[in-house]
Amino acid sequence: MNDQICPKFEYAVHILHRRWTGLIIYQLLRGEKRFNEIQQAMSISSKVLSERLKYLETEEIITRNVYPEVPVRIEYMLTEKGKSLSPILDELQKWANQWINI
Amino acid sequence: MNDQICPKFEYAVHILHRRWTGLIIYQLLRGEKRFNEIQQAMSISSKVLSERLKYLETEEIITRNVYPEVPVRIEYMLTEKGKSLSPILDELQKWANQWINI
Repeated sequence: MNDQICPKFEYAVHILHRRWTGLIIYQLLRGEKRFNEIQQAMSISSKVLSERLKYLETEEIITRNVYPEVPVRIEYMLTEKGKSLSPILDELQKWANQWINI
Repeated sequence: MNDQICPKFEYAVHILHRRWTGLIIYQLLRGEKRFNEIQQAMSISSKVLSERLKYLETEEIITRNVYPEVPVRIEYMLTEKGKSLSPILDELQKWANQWINI
């Protein structure tokens, strides 16, 4: 049936649809960030943030870099796959500027 | 703080983040559709679909048109605000084609 939804599209929607994942990606578009830096910009619990970061790692959208310093520094950054979500988030920002009045 | 998320962006993300709303909009980009037509293209219960359609109506993304025929015909269509989500969904489709291997 012509009107069926493309399964790739559906899969992509489901990645972004998980609550918070879009906002985490948006944060990381500006560069590598620590856990606490991501958390500070959003009202999200540590438990949920850490679950979402693991999910995005599994989907190969972000990577977790461990710097062997004392204390150890752990930062999250976007992969190429993650960075290429940027045009989607840009379009979303444009739409929000035009249509959302809050 | 410069890194805070724009509240308009956050609001827009939350609209699209509700499970199914993106897929409903995607369906309606191809034109006005009846409830059953939308439902057939997705594996979604009547209860959830009707709740999501009401939500999208409240957000002024879709309108519900009642045609006084026998039996009455009810169709859903995108508003201007809804139609202007099209570039976002196009970018998402491009991303999915490039990165999702299923």
